[in-house]
Parts: sequence; C-alpha cells; structure tokens
Amino acid sequence: MNAQMKFRKAAKSGLMVSMMLLAACASMDPLQEMQAEPHPLDPLTLNEYTQATAILRSAGYINDASRFTVLELLDPPKRSVQVWQPGEDFNRLAFAVVKQGSQTFEARIDLGSETVLAWTEVEDVQPSLIVEDFINTFRILAEDEEFVAAMAARGYAPDEVACSPMTLGNYNIPRYQGRRLIKTPCYALGEGSRFTRPIEGIFAVVDVEANEVYEFMDYAQIPVADNPAATTVSSNRQALREIGIYQPDGANFSVNGHVIKWDNWSFHYRLEKRSGLVVSDVHYQDGDNQRSILYQGAVSELFVPYMDPDTMWYSRTFLDAGEYGFGASGTPLSPGTDCPLTSLFLDADIPDDFGNAFTIPNAICIFERNTGDPAWRHFEFDSGFEGRPAVELVVRMGATIGNYDYFIDWVFTQDGRIKPRIGASGYDGYKGVLTQSMSDATAQADSAFGTLVAPGLIGVNHDHFFSFRLDVDIDGINNSLSLDRLVPRDIAGPRTAWVIESEIAQSEAEAKINYNPARPAIWRVMNPNQSGPVDHAPGYLLRPLNSIAYTLLDPEDPAHQRAAFTQHQLWVTPYAADERYAAGNYVNQGDFGMGLPAWTAEDRAIENTDIVLWYSAGFHHAPRVEDFPIMPFAWHEFELMPYNFFSRNPALDISPQWRGN
Amino acid sequence: MNAQMKFRKAAKSGLMVSMMLLAACASMDPLQEMQAEPHPLDPLTLNEYTQATAILRSAGYINDASRFTVLELLDPPKRSVQVWQPGEDFNRLAFAVVKQGSQTFEARIDLGSETVLAWTEVEDVQPSLIVEDFINTFRILAEDEEFVAAMAARGYAPDEVACSPMTLGNYNIPRYQGRRLIKTPCYALGEGSRFTRPIEGIFAVVDVEANEVYEFMDYAQIPVADNPAATTVSSNRQALREIGIYQPDGANFSVNGHVIKWDNWSFHYRLEKRSGLVVSDVHYQDGDNQRSILYQGAVSELFVPYMDPDTMWYSRTFLDAGEYGFGASGTPLSPGTDCPLTSLFLDADIPDDFGNAFTIPNAICIFERNTGDPAWRHFEFDSGFEGRPAVELVVRMGATIGNYDYFIDWVFTQDGRIKPRIGASGYDGYKGVLTQSMSDATAQADSAFGTLVAPGLIGVNHDHFFSFRLDVDIDGINNSLSLDRLVPRDIAGPRTAWVIESEIAQSEAEAKINYNPARPAIWRVMNPNQSGPVDHAPGYLLRPLNSIAYTLLDPEDPAHQRAAFTQHQLWVTPYAADERYAAGNYVNQGDFGMGLPAWTAEDRAIENTDIVLWYSAGFHHAPRVEDFPIMPFAWHEFELMPYNFFSRNPALDISPQWRGN
Repeated sequence: MNAQMKFRKAAKSGLMVSMMLLAACASMDPLQEMQAEPHPLDPLTLNEYTQATAILRSAGYINDASRFTVLELLDPPKRSVQVWQPGEDFNRLAFAVVKQGSQTFEARIDLGSETVLAWTEVEDVQPSLIVEDFINTFRILAEDEEFVAAMAARGYAPDEVACSPMTLGNYNIPRYQGRRLIKTPCYALGEGSRFTRPIEGIFAVVDVEANEVYEFMDYAQIPVADNPAATTVSSNRQALREIGIYQPDGANFSVNGHVIKWDNWSFHYRLEKRSGLVVSDVHYQDGDNQRSILYQGAVSELFVPYMDPDTMWYSRTFLDAGEYGFGASGTPLSPGTDCPLTSLFLDADIPDDFGNAFTIPNAICIFERNTGDPAWRHFEFDSGFEGRPAVELVVRMGATIGNYDYFIDWVFTQDGRIKPRIGASGYDGYKGVLTQSMSDATAQADSAFGTLVAPGLIGVNHDHFFSFRLDVDIDGINNSLSLDRLVPRDIAGPRTAWVIESEIAQSEAEAKINYNPARPAIWRVMNPNQSGPVDHAPGYLLRPLNSIAYTLLDPEDPAHQRAAFTQHQLWVTPYAADERYAAGNYVNQGDFGMGLPAWTAEDRAIENTDIVLWYSAGFHHAPRVEDFPIMPFAWHEFELMPYNFFSRNPALDISPQWRGN
Repeated sequence: MNAQMKFRKAAKSGLMVSMMLLAACASMDPLQEMQAEPHPLDPLTLNEYTQATAILRSAGYINDASRFTVLELLDPPKRSVQVWQPGEDFNRLAFAVVKQGSQTFEARIDLGSETVLAWTEVEDVQPSLIVEDFINTFRILAEDEEFVAAMAARGYAPDEVACSPMTLGNYNIPRYQGRRLIKTPCYALGEGSRFTRPIEGIFAVVDVEANEVYEFMDYAQIPVADNPAATTVSSNRQALREIGIYQPDGANFSVNGHVIKWDNWSFHYRLEKRSGLVVSDVHYQDGDNQRSILYQGAVSELFVPYMDPDTMWYSRTFLDAGEYGFGASGTPLSPGTDCPLTSLFLDADIPDDFGNAFTIPNAICIFERNTGDPAWRHFEFDSGFEGRPAVELVVRMGATIGNYDYFIDWVFTQDGRIKPRIGASGYDGYKGVLTQSMSDATAQADSAFGTLVAPGLIGVNHDHFFSFRLDVDIDGINNSLSLDRLVPRDIAGPRTAWVIESEIAQSEAEAKINYNPARPAIWRVMNPNQSGPVDHAPGYLLRPLNSIAYTLLDPEDPAHQRAAFTQHQLWVTPYAADERYAAGNYVNQGDFGMGLPAWTAEDRAIENTDIVLWYSAGFHHAPRVEDFPIMPFAWHEFELMPYNFFSRNPALDISPQWRGN
C-alpha cells in the first residue's frame, strides 16, 4: 500500500528536501483495515508510472532529456466502468505529456500490451511547469551576475533571498512569444515566512530553455517591510480546553483500495497531479438500488487574477491547476489541525518530472463530523418530538500554491447532498510599499489596488475562480438540464405569486447561465428516461450557496480571455473524453478562448444525453488587516441536492441510535 | 434560577398539556456553575412579570378580562447600559400591550417605584394572537353546528379533526375589517403528524371577540391523503456508530446570569416572546481592550407567503414574529438531537395571556463545536507547517410555528465573526389534491403552485424572509455605513481590474440596498471616529453568504405591502427606541407600509451616528419530494466579519494546545 512506499522516488524529483520535511508530519493509524481491491478508475500505481515510462523508452520515444509534465491514468470509457464488476480484470491505459527540448508530445500507452498507442507532437504550446523548471530558475538567477549584483546593492547575499517561479500569462507581447519563461519576484528571507517581505521593484524573466535571464528589471527601491513573523505572536489568550470528536466504537466508513463507503454512499477517490482530488462513481444505496448520481467530479481549473498594474504584478493571473498542478501542489495534512485526529490519512503518489512518482504522505484525509445540528426535527404540542442528529463525511485535500493554501472538501450528507467546499488560507499576495499607515500622504496612491494590511505591506486585490467539472449521471448516463425559473405572476384573488416555468436546455448556448437572485432559477439536472417518486423525473439541483462571483475583468483583457470560463457560473456540455479542463489543456502562456468558449462555440445538443456541468465558483478578495499575516480560512461552497430523486426525506430512516434521551 | 421554576405557571396559560409533554425532555447538567449576577438587559423575571401585572391592577388599569399580548423588559437607554458596572443597581421598566375587549392599550411600568408611567390606547389594531384566541377558536368550532355537521358529512367526528388557528392577513376585504378573526384549515387526526392529512375545501373564519363562526366555506371535496407517518418508516439502513463531541476537561464557556463568556467573546442573551433569542452587548477582548461590536441583534420579523390562490390558501402570508411570537413558539431542545449532549440547556420564561409567565424548559442550548477545519494554516516547503484547529460557540433556540420548525443560531468564531444561522425543518405546508402521481391527467393543474410530494399532497411554493435587526456599535456608538463598490476599470498596461470606490451612505435612501453579484459591493459598517490598525477606520462587514432572496411579489400585492421590508436586503436607520419590528408593531391584520418603509420615508441622516442595520435574509422554497414528510434542515446564514478592526488575524494566537502532533 501507499503508506509503505513513502519517499521511494522522492530523491529523484528534486523535491527531496521538501519531502524530508513532510516526513516530520505524523500519520494516524487507519481506522479501518484497508484492502486493495483494484478499480478501473484507480490512479496509476508507482509500478504503473515506472512501467509506462519504460514502455515509452523501449519504443524509443524518450531519452534522458525527456521530461513528463503529465503522466496519468487514461480514464477507461464510462460504459466499460459501469458494466465492470469487482474482481473482473480490466485493461489499463496511460496518458503522458512529454517535453523534449522545445517540443511537446502527447502519448497514449497500453500498459497491458505494453505498446505505445499514439505519440503525437503538439505544436506551439508550453506545457505545465515542472520541478526542474523551478530548480533551473533558481540556478540561473544565482548564476546571473547582474541579478546577484542588484540584490547585493540592496544588501542581500544570494542565500538571503528566495524568489517565486511565477507564470507569465499571455499578453500578446511579441518578445515573450515562443519562449518558456518564468517571472521571479523575490523575497528577503528571515524569521517566519518570506511572503511578508517582498522585495519590490526588481525581478527577472528567466528563459528556462535557453538557460538565461532573458529580461531583468530593477526599477524601484522600496524598503522591505519588517513585520513580526506569524509564529512569534505573543498574547494572553487562554488556551481552550480540548474539544475533539468522540467515536468510541470507531469510524463508520470503509476504504477498499480507492473505494470509500459510508452510510448509504459509495464512491471512488484519487489524487491527480493536475486536478487534485477526483471523486468518481458516486452512488447512493436507496433501498435495494445502487443509484448513480455523479460519475466524476473534480476541480478542472483555478484562475487567480491580481488587480495591480505594476509591471511585476499585472501578469499575476494564474491558472494554477494547468500551470502548476493542483495535485502536484498537494501538501501533507496535519492531524489535529488540518483534519481531526479521528481522520484516516491517505498518501498519494504524484508523477515526477522523470516519469516516476513521489509520494505525498497524508495527502488526503477522511473523517466524519457530528455537525451538532439535527438532520431533521419536528416538535408538536400534542404528538411530541421527533428528530435525528446529523453526521457528515468529509474527504479533504490541501494544496499550497506559493503563498496560498487551498482545501478542497467533498462532503457527503445523510440527506443525499454532495457539498464541495473550497477553503482558502495561507498568505495573501503582499506588495511592498512606502506607506506605513493610512495617515501617510502616500496611503491613497499606494492602496489604489489593495489594502494596507501592515506597515509597508499592501494585500493586493484579487479574485479566485474555481471551475468544477461535474460529470453527472442521475440514475443513468442520459440526463437533461432543466431551468426552473421562478416567474412572478398574477394569480386569482388579491394575490400575486411566483410560479415555476421549466425549460429543458436544448443546446450549449441555452445553458450558459449566470446567477441572478433578482430573477431566480433552479438549476436542475434530471433524467427524463426514468420514473422517480410519484412519477417525477428524478433529479439533482446544483445550488451555488455562497460561491457566486462575476468576473469584473473586461472581455478584451487577455487575462480574461485565457480564463473565459468565468463568463458564466454554469456551462453544460455533452460529454467528450478530451474536454477536461475549462480553460483548455495547455494554459501556461496559453492561447485565448480555449476550453469552454471554444467547445461550446459549436452549440452542441445537450438534451437527454451524457452531459457534463461546469460550475464556476468564485470569490472576490479585497484583503483586510485580519488576513495578515496568515489569513483565517475563507470557505465557499456549493451543493448537489436531490430533487424528486428519493421517494421521501432520505434522512428519515436514520436510526435514533445514540441520542441522549 | 430558571431550572427550579419549571412549570410553575404553565397551568394557567392553557398550554398545560403541551408543557407536560415538554417535561419528558431530558435536561443536561450545566457544564458550568451558574451564578445569577443581574444585568440591566436581563429579561423580566417571573417575579417581575407578576409585579408588573400587580402594579397595573393596583392602579386600576386592568381586570380579570384583561389579556397581555406583550409583557417585557423596556430596554434601558443604551448609554446607561454602557456606563453600568457589574454590581451596580439599576432601575427596571416594563412594557405591556394589554387587550381589553376590543380595545388595546400600551403600558409603561416602573418596577422600582411601582408606578404606571403611561397607559395609552392604540386604536384600530389587532395585537398578536394569544393562547386564549386559539382555545376560543377550537371551542367555537366545536360548538358550531354547521361546522360539526360538515365534518361529519366527511366522516369525521369532532375529536378526529384538528384545526390550525391561522392569521388572515389584510387584503382590504371590507367584511373582515374591524374584527379579530382567525382562519381555520383543518386536518384529520391519525398516526403521526396531522400536517400530512389536510382536509381541503372546508374552513371557517372565526371571530374570537364575537365568539362565533363568522364565515364558513365548504366548497370542495378532496379525499384526505393517506401516506405513511414519518415515524413508522422501516428501512435496512444501518445505524452509525456513535459520533459525539469530546470535551474531557469540560466546556470553555461560562454563564453568569444572562452573560456568556467564551474565548475572547462576551455577550448577553435573553429570549423574548416576540423576537425570540436576543443577543446584546457583544464585546470582544482584544488584548487589554473590551471592544464593542454589536449592541443588540435579533429576529425582528419573519414573513412566509404561500403562493396558491385557493381561497383557503391565498391568505397564508404569515408575519410569524408579530402574529404569533417567535419566542412564544419556542420549543424545548432535545439533547443529543437538537443540540449535542455536551450542550448547556437553559430554560426561558415567557409571559402568558394573564401577565404571569410560563417556563419553556431547554429553550436555549449553548455548545462548542470542533469544526474539523483549521482556523488558519500554511505549509511551506522550506519553513514547514503552521496552523490551528478552529472551535466555535453556538447559542441556539428552536421555534415550532404550526407545521414549520425554525432554529436560530448565533455562532461566534475565534477569528472574530458573528454568524447568525437560520435552520428550517418540520413539515411543509401540504395541500390535498386528487392527483396521485405526475402521470395523472390532473397533475399539471394540481401542481401549478407547488410540487406533488406524495400521492394526493402538494407541497405549496412559498418563501421565508427573516428581518434581522442589528444594532451595531463598532468601537462605540457612532458608526457609518460605507458601500465599497468593486468597479471595473482599465488600469495601466494590458490589464483591466476592479478597484474599490467607497461611499459613505449619508441618509436612509442611500442605504436601501439590494444584493447584486454582477455589481458587487462590500457592505461595511465602520467607526469614523476611531483609529484602527495602521490608521484604518475599524469596521465590520455584513456578508449575505447564502441567505439572499428577492421578493417576487408584486409591489401592489397586499401581502407584500405588509412585509415591504423584503424590498431590500439591507436597510439602515438611525437608532430609535420604538423602531424594533421591520414590518411594524401591530402586524396582525395590520396596515400596509408599516415599519421600515414608513420610518425611512423621512430619509433621516445615518452618517456617523448610532445606526441600526436591518438585514432581510430570505429563501424561496419550491418543495421537493425529499422534503416529505419532515424536511431535512435547510440552513441559511450570513455573517458579521471584522474588516480592518483587528491589527492582525485574530485567530493567530490560538494556542497550539491539543493538536495531535
């Protein structure tokens, strides 16, 4: 199992130091005996990574100079997974993106027959950054005399500075075209995190293929802010007495390989380098029926544009999943802090640059939560009280992408909801300024694009947009999207009211939907081929909860054009195996209009077919002093909620069990 | 203390049977020794209720025919509370609304000097319903030959039927003016709750002053639905192993009289007959400073309009707080189901019709919740992991208003947030129809205004709107509302962005705000007189989270005109002692345009003064089969979040304490 294979390949990946550090984190004993029943949707195993690489090498496609930006399971066709029974054999395919010099190739590999099914060059793309790009960047900077001299002029020796390898985006700037470039804002090292000590006014653009500093800018001198480190805070706040989760008889979930079962739920999990946590094959046991709800759900892209025109800042318009990898940025979860001590912690294997893999220990945690709330209740003066306590299951991953820390939770409830949650913590992107307080004459100008959060530091305004790809399969593969609009109407008598007018979206154009609370609509996925309770078409709603944000970038802004999935909160497409990432496959320095805008231009039919929902969750972030230095978690969530799917409240039959009375 | 006084007065109130039943509910031992330090904002004690009544009687204002619809503390002036020190004496005033025959009087009583300060008739109003109104309604119906005969014709003896005493609203119907009327839809009794067995097509309008059935309608025959009771569900769902909250060293909060302290928070709680749970005097201990945030917060009104034109249904447009009383509808909370077993349960005394009081046992619970989430975290590849687990405090009440069950939570977090939550469970309002399934020919017509949730039952479409009155005092009494709009702008270089344009609302008209995610704005209350961190004006944001709904009723609809607070999600008024209820004081059969629309017509100044926020939380409810028979809890919440109030993340100094590693 994963746990025994920790660190085997880490040394090769260039992340050795980091991984050593990870080893310091404790790992809980599994609450459940884990078996390892294989499943067709399992991620590639350590052996399979190595095997795929060996096949490519034997076939003569790769050599020692080859680097893998992608190496992952090529998902088998949905219909083959659906007819598969546990214990049956299945074939395994892998997909790779290989960078060789300035060329990029896509490969499809059959691990069963050990053959390369396809080897195709993809032109004019820059695949995701890899660890070697980071290492090269740091080396090139350290060897660059001009850069070292400029830092020395500021009083910093090379080992007193750390730089961030940031993507450039694409702003149609001719001198940046056709090169693999990394932009490097730097920070002064010191006590605690570097991110509160930005060195403004100086950066390099490094060409990691040409092995040189391609551009160097030294255009302003701002004293580096000197705020106390987060970790040295002193206070007289009293420690709380312990409060934990009490499970005297153990956990209620089981893990068999990558299949998790809890209460009436079953689903498959895996951690992929790009998308991070992927849940698949989500079913609910409804009486004697295993009913399908969600075939696959994951983060497909993540767009974080900052709102400052400074030459070092304007390009901070990250597509984190496609540029860095959401899973590749996975971090170990700390027992008792990141997840309760009662959690089961699971490792994950992530492919490295060389076609092998390294293990992130405690990359995922699974735990149950007594919400403290009832699942339902009713008190009646004559017939008494009835109610049940609510428990939910949480599957969580965490990723640190530079300064930011993200959590992705998939929460499963006893009343049939699936609730993805996005947590954001870590450090805001801080910009150094002269202003020390809002009373300074420079304050208004310095805080034009952010908030002064500490003397000399601006938390720069920014957004976070997450595209969730949700391959829904409500009671089967063929589904439709119904827009159930709440429409004001005069009704008989003295009253007006809203009534529901339902419309099935026929094509992609009819399903580009923005959330508007003044003209509310229910977004309902349903199966028109099945007869649900009292002959309703069984369905699930996508409910945005607190995760709505409109992009405020101009449609012509290149940053927007690379992340145009943010134009709508909901898109619906017919399933296509190669449509996985909302902003396109190759987003690093990538082209405009890729992904959803390009795919949906055809306006394909989406009625009663295998449809995929793309939900753009988002939030604007105007930083506040309270976000400094490390911000409190900001949680945003949406949910899939059953709607005429079950024949009654699915939490009704929760056992009265361990209530106190 | 309250716990010892259970049931003392219950027998008088006509709620004896119900209260007997309440006694069956277990009550936990308090986790903390309770003392009883009096506070000027404490609710009237049992003695004070009796004393106030005695003073009115001695002064000759009331007699045996007098009935109290209101009897409560008259809040002392804010400034007197703020200078008060624990242990100091303070005077107590009471406010009463007394109904004598068809007349209504308001009284102000000085309990210290035992004098009646004011006794004033209020003309042309119908004060809130009282228990005697319900009892009279049932008696009048049972004695009405026509009604009894009509039920007999349907096959029901009087003791096989239960009717709901529903308010009529006000639809400018001349024959209803000037009478105290109650409308009575009825249900067939049987196993489980009556609410799944409505008897459609027959109702009475009872005049509880004239002691007669004023109107009787018998206009349709619909067979009563026969669905299994919620409580007799059988299933093979496995009981989960116990999962609870573990607090080996006890709770972290203390209760002193009505003052609760937890972590850095302190606040006062009470349960009022109309508003339910009121929190007051909310402070945060910030280093050596006790900083004020919220002087008082409570539900000020609750509007639940149903969307069916049927003659029995159109008038279901309840203003539950003003018509029935949100606190008066309080129910005991069940340990282990409604609240965790680790909760402290507190009783509450509610005035009865006669100017005495009865006790609701376990009316409030207080508990801590390990959220399972970190308060904050950051992982860095070189400098390691830092984070803290998050705990929150919940103070909860529950109210059952007919078929619906509501929870109001006030949640306090370690990072300085106050998060009010609304939970809704219980039974939807079900309407009996002929349709048994959506395949029936009658299905479309029968479900025009709701959802077929079971054979013969429509869950009728409706809304819930809650007006929260939030008397904010950020670092002092005088505050302003700043609208910080996120405005798209061309910035230098290739980029566009949003920038913040702040505007202080000068008068009430500038602070009638609707939430629009396409043109986002931050709603910020701030104190322009104080210098906060780095000289920001300290502030708090009101953030709607998932609690936004626009009313879809026509502005001319009488139902809307009685609840016009729903026109805007946010209103701001200058503090006025007599402006407490968003739809006005006398909402039962009440006039149009009362409360916020009337008060703000003056367009008073609200800049740098003592302001009150009125937040209209809301949600549309299109019922679903899964809401049947008892709906899973639907939670909606908003929050007050510090914004440049603290000088850093206020959760930063949480002790590393009982982390697992």
